[in-house]
Amino acid sequence: MNPKTSISRASALAGGLALSAFAALPAWAQDAATDAAEGAVEAVAGEASTHTQFILNSLLMLIGGILVFWMAAGFAMLEAGFVRTKNVSMQLLKNITMYSLACLAYFLIGYQIMYPGDGWLMDGVIGAIGLATLEPVGLTPDAADLTYATVSADFFFQVMFCATAASIVSGTVAERIKLWPFLVLVFFLTALIYPIQASWKWGGGFLDQMGFLDFAGSTVVHSVGGWAALTGAIILGARKGKYNADGSVNVMPGSNMPLAVLGMFILWMGWYGFNGASQLAMGTVGDIADVGRVMANTNAGAIGGVLAAVILSQVLYKKVDLTFAINGALAGLVSVTAEPLTPGLGAATLIGAVGGVIVVFTVPLLDKFKIDDVVGAIPVHLFAGIWGTIAVVLTNPDASLVTQLIAIVSVGVFVAVTSAVVWLAVKAIMGLRPTEEAEYLGLDKAEVGVEAYPEFPMSSTR
Amino acid sequence: MNPKTSISRASALAGGLALSAFAALPAWAQDAATDAAEGAVEAVAGEASTHTQFILNSLLMLIGGILVFWMAAGFAMLEAGFVRTKNVSMQLLKNITMYSLACLAYFLIGYQIMYPGDGWLMDGVIGAIGLATLEPVGLTPDAADLTYATVSADFFFQVMFCATAASIVSGTVAERIKLWPFLVLVFFLTALIYPIQASWKWGGGFLDQMGFLDFAGSTVVHSVGGWAALTGAIILGARKGKYNADGSVNVMPGSNMPLAVLGMFILWMGWYGFNGASQLAMGTVGDIADVGRVMANTNAGAIGGVLAAVILSQVLYKKVDLTFAINGALAGLVSVTAEPLTPGLGAATLIGAVGGVIVVFTVPLLDKFKIDDVVGAIPVHLFAGIWGTIAVVLTNPDASLVTQLIAIVSVGVFVAVTSAVVWLAVKAIMGLRPTEEAEYLGLDKAEVGVEAYPEFPMSSTR
Amino acid sequence: MNPKTSISRASALAGGLALSAFAALPAWAQDAATDAAEGAVEAVAGEASTHTQFILNSLLMLIGGILVFWMAAGFAMLEAGFVRTKNVSMQLLKNITMYSLACLAYFLIGYQIMYPGDGWLMDGVIGAIGLATLEPVGLTPDAADLTYATVSADFFFQVMFCATAASIVSGTVAERIKLWPFLVLVFFLTALIYPIQASWKWGGGFLDQMGFLDFAGSTVVHSVGGWAALTGAIILGARKGKYNADGSVNVMPGSNMPLAVLGMFILWMGWYGFNGASQLAMGTVGDIADVGRVMANTNAGAIGGVLAAVILSQVLYKKVDLTFAINGALAGLVSVTAEPLTPGLGAATLIGAVGGVIVVFTVPLLDKFKIDDVVGAIPVHLFAGIWGTIAVVLTNPDASLVTQLIAIVSVGVFVAVTSAVVWLAVKAIMGLRPTEEAEYLGLDKAEVGVEAYPEFPMSSTR
Repeated sequence: MNPKTSISRASALAGGLALSAFAALPAWAQDAATDAAEGAVEAVAGEASTHTQFILNSLLMLIGGILVFWMAAGFAMLEAGFVRTKNVSMQLLKNITMYSLACLAYFLIGYQIMYPGDGWLMDGVIGAIGLATLEPVGLTPDAADLTYATVSADFFFQVMFCATAASIVSGTVAERIKLWPFLVLVFFLTALIYPIQASWKWGGGFLDQMGFLDFAGSTVVHSVGGWAALTGAIILGARKGKYNADGSVNVMPGSNMPLAVLGMFILWMGWYGFNGASQLAMGTVGDIADVGRVMANTNAGAIGGVLAAVILSQVLYKKVDLTFAINGALAGLVSVTAEPLTPGLGAATLIGAVGGVIVVFTVPLLDKFKIDDVVGAIPVHLFAGIWGTIAVVLTNPDASLVTQLIAIVSVGVFVAVTSAVVWLAVKAIMGLRPTEEAEYLGLDKAEVGVEAYPEFPMSSTR
Repeated sequence: MNPKTSISRASALAGGLALSAFAALPAWAQDAATDAAEGAVEAVAGEASTHTQFILNSLLMLIGGILVFWMAAGFAMLEAGFVRTKNVSMQLLKNITMYSLACLAYFLIGYQIMYPGDGWLMDGVIGAIGLATLEPVGLTPDAADLTYATVSADFFFQVMFCATAASIVSGTVAERIKLWPFLVLVFFLTALIYPIQASWKWGGGFLDQMGFLDFAGSTVVHSVGGWAALTGAIILGARKGKYNADGSVNVMPGSNMPLAVLGMFILWMGWYGFNGASQLAMGTVGDIADVGRVMANTNAGAIGGVLAAVILSQVLYKKVDLTFAINGALAGLVSVTAEPLTPGLGAATLIGAVGGVIVVFTVPLLDKFKIDDVVGAIPVHLFAGIWGTIAVVLTNPDASLVTQLIAIVSVGVFVAVTSAVVWLAVKAIMGLRPTEEAEYLGLDKAEVGVEAYPEFPMSSTR
Repeated sequence: MNPKTSISRASALAGGLALSAFAALPAWAQDAATDAAEGAVEAVAGEASTHTQFILNSLLMLIGGILVFWMAAGFAMLEAGFVRTKNVSMQLLKNITMYSLACLAYFLIGYQIMYPGDGWLMDGVIGAIGLATLEPVGLTPDAADLTYATVSADFFFQVMFCATAASIVSGTVAERIKLWPFLVLVFFLTALIYPIQASWKWGGGFLDQMGFLDFAGSTVVHSVGGWAALTGAIILGARKGKYNADGSVNVMPGSNMPLAVLGMFILWMGWYGFNGASQLAMGTVGDIADVGRVMANTNAGAIGGVLAAVILSQVLYKKVDLTFAINGALAGLVSVTAEPLTPGLGAATLIGAVGGVIVVFTVPLLDKFKIDDVVGAIPVHLFAGIWGTIAVVLTNPDASLVTQLIAIVSVGVFVAVTSAVVWLAVKAIMGLRPTEEAEYLGLDKAEVGVEAYPEFPMSSTR
């Protein structure tokens, strides 16, 4: 039976009543009967019930969480494709262990710091101490805050964001950092650095109170990974042989382009969850329309990034570099992440296109400064993240340029300083780099003991 | 509290009323009280509210859109696996840029042409002019057509279908077409050719008015890509060295079978969204049961295609060719796409099996005619698409064989002619093929400047 | 309009009534009017309607089915990465055909055996005979059992579980079994062996009646594949050259680590559907919170497995073996599959960690017994499956250790005996192994006729 039939039947009930006795009722009883009929009709014809909304909101975040989890695979494939063959197994191992450690750290420490509720240690700046705790099995409606979603869905979604921030770092510092020192940085990043600054916005902290807008995290997630990657690249130094004394650069091409492209597509797919589920609700007509709008704009940003990077690379270099297409897509996605809701499709495409342009111009720039970013994560996540955060003011009238800049600087200074402290401390205590010989041999043989493609002879050791 | 408890409670309300005073009421008041109780009970026990239905419909199409997006990755991996190593980067680049351009063209032109509503330029034949526009942020229920789904979800779903049609072409014409001429064809295909013929059915045009049935697009999507691929393959000519003067064929095996299989699995997965979300609704008991039926039948079609192709290839060739298993699955999927709802599981398996048989017989046939289809897209998408469109009449009593044939021919003639015109115009103006030397060297080195696997020496240049 | 507005409006209706005439009503009429208003309010504010619950339950299982389907791709990639290059195409082919045959067998025979309803052939032990049949197109609510989900969604979800059980076997027996004999085993496994023992628990058979608890199938699915893999490995014997006469083991490293890692990530992602949708309902606040809890715990189990395996392998071997990280994740996932609901996040992590430890200790153990398990499926799916089944008693007070052990043994004996009978019968009738020469040459050249990477010269034939 469709709703219209149902409404008709309810009307007929009232109608049947009218035929027999409605007219004989006193006015107040006529009103009461009409009200009752209307209430029943509205319940069927009208909005979703509170429970249904709660369920749908939670479902959105669970689907989103699965998709953002999938981004961990995307980073692993992207990075395995962009590093040289001799370091592929290590890069894969780093991605698996990093993701796992990030989830553990967020459970043990990060979640409560990021969402302290009323329990801030320092008001609006440093959150609460404690483990993440889910609702008991078989949650009763009375025990739930039905205006949002289940804690389990919220935790599942948020833990994936934390892991994403860490994933950004591993690509930049690839091929020249040992496993365990890297994991120490990941622990501090995901237990403390990411959650503390995320609480400033998403936990209701001081940036949120100032009116800072960052829908799904161009600054809160992507720039955080980008800053930690930048400090890491500087403190680590470049791969042996990357930069010559005369200032020239040795290209070290990625070993497997299909893997890198697969990684890009996985990330792109995951981004529909990253941005779309950041609406945090789909229980009303307005919310579901907005979720769709966010997803359509997310796609628009990505294609803008691709097309801009491809056209620009054709114009500048007379060839279309595949790696620019890949990073153009990702930069386009990062660019619309701060505000994927308010732009129209055309504006979202253009915002993403600027991200693609940024990649083409800043990838060579880093080489000028001898900052060795193996996968291009700093242009993609940091530079496009800053751009996306600023671009909010172009389409969202609630945004203030000054506030956006304050947030960019606050988060940037905090993450750059804290991550640099961790990098330097780890360097002093454990050492960051493998021996020169291990780096030359490749970390797969030196540290992992498992070659990525043991049966394919390499054309050179490079 | 589960619904039964709720119903019991509502009954108890009426019951409590009865105990105290119900019997003392006049008949009309007894009726009114009963009606009110029933209304409340029905609202809880009965169908989803209009808003909930609208949300669920939109959610279906958003999930479907993500899955059909994922098919873009599937085509990229399938094609990267089926081409030779020296053209892998180019094939990846084509897939990324083609997808991006298709989305842009559909936004700028295609969507309004495909869904003109009441604004046809030529009634039932050519749609409307204009950009795609989403609802404003925070759509109010009063402003929405609550019988369907959000425009944002609809656009997000449909733009992915348009990109799919383009993806089909790139595999056939691989390894011997330059990037930019190919993109010009993609632009016309996705801005005009695909949307115009799609409007004939899905926009409510003349084929729809005739009663043509094509659930998710065996003809509307797959055959369109197939026809454009066929005209392209003929106009381009074969790869250098593919066909010898004596009529013999040089096998040019695909470079990476795991990639091709991954592509197949991705496409298979995406097809659950392609077909399942083409139900366009899941807000009622009947609709959700149908969505499940469509997904189960989609899987049945695929396994039918695999098993038929594998058994037939064992019987005919005494070996099981992996590429037949891959293309058997895809042909099975295309075959059930025109009608994944009305068949039972057994019928769907058989319909898919015929698709698998078609692949085994027609792949060699194309070589007889020296039509060089690198990935087998013409058998899979065009021949199986025609079969699937005809097969609708086997299980859907509303289908007419004559109407199905009229549609197949109308779409075929339109797409073949228009795509041939574009291919020929592009050939005349820009040229389609790289130089012989570039083709011999491989497009990765000649045009892209990025090798797919730079550290793996090839056993030969082939 | 949000629910609060709605509730306010309904209250206002009652309020307006009160203002005019409510006070003048007799007490029973005041009650009736209040009840009617409350009913309408509750319908909006309260739980999802029966239809909505039915739709949401079905949607959960459809999403779950897509995700578990995706695991078929995961197994294919994992195994293609873990076998040697010369057998990669065959392993891919086995995975595609095995999945297809499993779906067919389950449709033809397995589903009715597994879910006999009231039609047991032997009560609680052997189910019913017949094809799986979906609901008719356009299911009416009156014809549906609205307390569960659509048959189509149920079938779609369950058929994927059956295919999963089969997928576990193919990895263990890789590189040394011919295609068609392997498919015969798959047929019996998926038509009879898996469904019969699954009916004991999930069809309401004797293990279910005893109180055996296995949420998503550590025993019912994973150990079943594991037992059939174990009997297969023993009956087949090891790959030529794997074990030397002096007891030493020749390591035969997997050919493609990124593929194996991709497979792991795909399986991990699919597991959210495998476990999460095994809640079988998300129409209430309690159910959706539980689904989220299950997904969060599933992730926790996986990361526990990774971290334990990685740390242990560093301690024991001074290197971190990537394959332990991969199998650690999978063993962690298997470990929490029997009870992903009742543990807290910390307990789930520890349960998964034990799974990781099991992998590190038992992979070498199998080699001691010259049981050649190419991908490590026996430790991951059988040993961790047993552990997970036992671990239910640690967090679920309804579980009995004795009952869990009875189930482990019952299923183990049944599957080991029946699968051994099939393996031995197939061995006697068709032969299981290729010729020594074919095994040396590789099955890709010998049986498939398609090489996985035809353009990459191998460093040796191994």
